[in-house]
Amino acid sequence: MTIVPDDLSPRDSYRLLISAVVPRPIAWVSSIGADGSLNLAPFSFFNAVSGSPPIVMVSIGQRRGTTKDTLRNVQETGEFVVNMVDQDLAEAMNQTSGEWAYEVDEFELAGLEPAPSVEVRPPRVAAAKVAMEAKLTQVITIEGSTSTMILGQVLRFHLRDGLLRPNGLIDPNLLQPVSRLGGDEYATFGQVFSMARPRV
Amino acid sequence: MTIVPDDLSPRDSYRLLISAVVPRPIAWVSSIGADGSLNLAPFSFFNAVSGSPPIVMVSIGQRRGTTKDTLRNVQETGEFVVNMVDQDLAEAMNQTSGEWAYEVDEFELAGLEPAPSVEVRPPRVAAAKVAMEAKLTQVITIEGSTSTMILGQVLRFHLRDGLLRPNGLIDPNLLQPVSRLGGDEYATFGQVFSMARPRV
Repeated sequence: MTIVPDDLSPRDSYRLLISAVVPRPIAWVSSIGADGSLNLAPFSFFNAVSGSPPIVMVSIGQRRGTTKDTLRNVQETGEFVVNMVDQDLAEAMNQTSGEWAYEVDEFELAGLEPAPSVEVRPPRVAAAKVAMEAKLTQVITIEGSTSTMILGQVLRFHLRDGLLRPNGLIDPNLLQPVSRLGGDEYATFGQVFSMARPRV
Repeated sequence: MTIVPDDLSPRDSYRLLISAVVPRPIAWVSSIGADGSLNLAPFSFFNAVSGSPPIVMVSIGQRRGTTKDTLRNVQETGEFVVNMVDQDLAEAMNQTSGEWAYEVDEFELAGLEPAPSVEVRPPRVAAAKVAMEAKLTQVITIEGSTSTMILGQVLRFHLRDGLLRPNGLIDPNLLQPVSRLGGDEYATFGQVFSMARPRV
């Protein structure tokens, strides 16, 4: 079957897209406003976009026509931390996904301990097995959309001890990342398999 | 433990990042050059970036200092198709990931049947359960990097019959998407679970 998104309502078009582009990694972004307000919120329009230097991208939609707290903070201070969400943190992550007022500290709300960052002001989630301190490098308006992409260069990685394998790669079976699907759905981590890139 | 990517080689920094941002969805991108050359290649620096209109992003790195075929084609013709990779297509997808010459038709190479698109010239992978025809809307240079992001608006979705649930969402258990990890590693699809966003 074939579907033209222009024939759908904006909501149905969005729902179809997020059930098609799966599974999406989750950036659990901590940020601080100029006034010191702390924020923590999950985003799944997220990925790496450059390997060296390491740069990550988060696309942030509007919330009922206004700027989301994360975008406001990152634009005010130019810094953020991406915490990766694993199985044990899924419930707490979901608690921080509500449309809480700007003043609400989602660390406190979800009972999460902040740990100080080294390169940037926003703290990381102490319980996250992987956290990336980033400085904002680009803010990009998406043409035809009200969403905004932020790009940030990773200045420092924090990894739970034992997570890094001798080959320099994080062990995904120890990380057990949770991913985002459509609707209210998420996925647990599946089975790892390897395929070598063909030699030309 | 904590790692500063500036202390790593470019290769090790890249390897650490791609093992941290997981699991990544895979865009298997078909494109055509101005001369009619057909190309098919997988990218995992990929995600949705806007829900309405539906817009997807693919970040394309350089290949030994030169523009990759996909970026060249998309810049020449302004069109591409994102095919989603499922369990059954993983081997064929991997075959198309080699650094094949521009002239090589990866559909032929991997024994894949192309199916004509409706809105754009590049064909889709007939065997893909989900394919999205897209027109290029933005080309963005990533500051400080040699990678380039392409943004494309989805003009038409193709879905395998039976894949769409009555609620308007694609069934992830029927899709069984494969995702990308670090190194040569991929992940099968895990278990679906639901968490309702908290009401504020």
